[in-house]
Amino acid sequence: MNREQAAALLQRSDDVLILTHRRPDGDTIGSGVGLCAALRQMGKAAWLLENPDATSLFTPYLEGYVAPAEFVPQFVVSVDIAGLDLFPQNASIYRDKVDLSIDHHPSNEGFGKENLVEADKAACGEVVYALVCMMTEMNAEIALPLYLAVSTDTGCFVYGNTTPNSHRVAAELIDCDIPYRELNKRHFRTKSFKRLKLESLIMQNMELLQNNSLAIAPISLAMMASIQATEEDAEDIAAFVGLVHGVLHSVTIRELRHGECKISLRTNPNYLNASKTCAILGGGGHVAAAGCTIHGTMEEAKAAIISAIERVQCHG
Amino acid sequence: MNREQAAALLQRSDDVLILTHRRPDGDTIGSGVGLCAALRQMGKAAWLLENPDATSLFTPYLEGYVAPAEFVPQFVVSVDIAGLDLFPQNASIYRDKVDLSIDHHPSNEGFGKENLVEADKAACGEVVYALVCMMTEMNAEIALPLYLAVSTDTGCFVYGNTTPNSHRVAAELIDCDIPYRELNKRHFRTKSFKRLKLESLIMQNMELLQNNSLAIAPISLAMMASIQATEEDAEDIAAFVGLVHGVLHSVTIRELRHGECKISLRTNPNYLNASKTCAILGGGGHVAAAGCTIHGTMEEAKAAIISAIERVQCHG
Repeated sequence: MNREQAAALLQRSDDVLILTHRRPDGDTIGSGVGLCAALRQMGKAAWLLENPDATSLFTPYLEGYVAPAEFVPQFVVSVDIAGLDLFPQNASIYRDKVDLSIDHHPSNEGFGKENLVEADKAACGEVVYALVCMMTEMNAEIALPLYLAVSTDTGCFVYGNTTPNSHRVAAELIDCDIPYRELNKRHFRTKSFKRLKLESLIMQNMELLQNNSLAIAPISLAMMASIQATEEDAEDIAAFVGLVHGVLHSVTIRELRHGECKISLRTNPNYLNASKTCAILGGGGHVAAAGCTIHGTMEEAKAAIISAIERVQCHG
Repeated sequence: MNREQAAALLQRSDDVLILTHRRPDGDTIGSGVGLCAALRQMGKAAWLLENPDATSLFTPYLEGYVAPAEFVPQFVVSVDIAGLDLFPQNASIYRDKVDLSIDHHPSNEGFGKENLVEADKAACGEVVYALVCMMTEMNAEIALPLYLAVSTDTGCFVYGNTTPNSHRVAAELIDCDIPYRELNKRHFRTKSFKRLKLESLIMQNMELLQNNSLAIAPISLAMMASIQATEEDAEDIAAFVGLVHGVLHSVTIRELRHGECKISLRTNPNYLNASKTCAILGGGGHVAAAGCTIHGTMEEAKAAIISAIERVQCHG
């Protein structure tokens, strides 16, 4: 289904329920709220299904948009959900009832009755932006969540997925007089004290191998406990290790419990296939980012991943 | 002078020498090289005056653009230079010979015979972009340095100075098929090992006061020596301290030599005027970022700045 057809379908619909994905990020929340605000401006009843995993970073955007228990939807839309296993628990009753799936993931499974997938877009928010422009007038209430969507999925326009379209959409959204400066500060220029303490500990324990091109960072239970760090503080910590100048590949070894470690591997795929490397240890993922779980001590996990990396480096 | 007049003036000129500012950043280098490449495409001889302070982060962009000793300029342009005291040492002979000053600083002193100052622009690169568009066709050789200029001055579109125009210019520049992903990685997603070590040390020594809203970070000579950190590693370290969640005001105390400390103060100007605070200690700056030098130990410097902050907080 193309964009014009999707817009026409939404224009004909009413009592719309919008689904966001498990462990929601700024793109799914922002796309959902932005679409919801646009549908309401078009005179329709529209709500987001409550997302039980939403963290405090995103709950403020959801205020006034979460469906009350008595709401009976006539039309169900999913945003930024690539596959059925990404539905939150409470959304499972809608698995075969999605009327329109709006997404930007090339891996989208096509589970919707209709699917609008634009894989050239950095964020689902860019797809929703284009749809909204065809249906109603843009305003600050719609633009702010869409800016959240585009900015978070591109790391505020710094990640490799950023395109000219991401910048053009951002310009149009900021033109709606939204508090984007406050949003940027909150999402991209603020870290929790515990997160910074954790990064500091990682720097004290990081090892550089292979001529400083391979960084290995252990994160033990003791380290986490010493600063009372939570899961949220450790989120996407592999990206931090990859910041080090000259590092091509980075490994974080998280001790989940005594005798069990989770390895995250980020690589420059021109030199090392992360997915292939982790597959040796029973894991998997993408060419540049993959993971696996090791039953053993942190030292054993370290030895296992180094040996797997060397094997792929030598034998491809 | 308006943009049309400045473009006409450049079109009439030849043998152009371009000046960049002391301790050059991405905006002055990128604006200079971008303008130079455009003038060359217009068939003119154009060079940048060598900038003795240029660091290795920026020297690659200068390759092929630095004026040979025998070059005799007929027309001198300065880019991103707000005042005469920002001229590099070797540019002082041009202090009263600047034919056109192109800038975006509201504080521009108007030292040029003609001055094009657009203070609504986040980067001087945005002013140069608009000029180039009026004079010649954009191409990758011009666009890459201009993208460097706009992206570095906006912190890759995250700082409060970013505007819709910054995003629109970025979109047009990326459309020229420039390696912006590599540039983003190099400038915004890479930190030196020593810089990260320094940040780690700061986190171990940071103090939070005033209900965690005031962060104080001492950086002693011993700390710098322990990791062999250089000036470059410590650049703009005050911004790092300001990352901490909940912190409104941040202080870094750099020990310059035994008995002399440099204080940098970053504030939320709605709550504390940084310039007023540092003025008490003989320094100065802007409402949100100021500094001063203290003759005394680090402990004495800390006591002095806390007392100055409290005085401004109590008495305004």
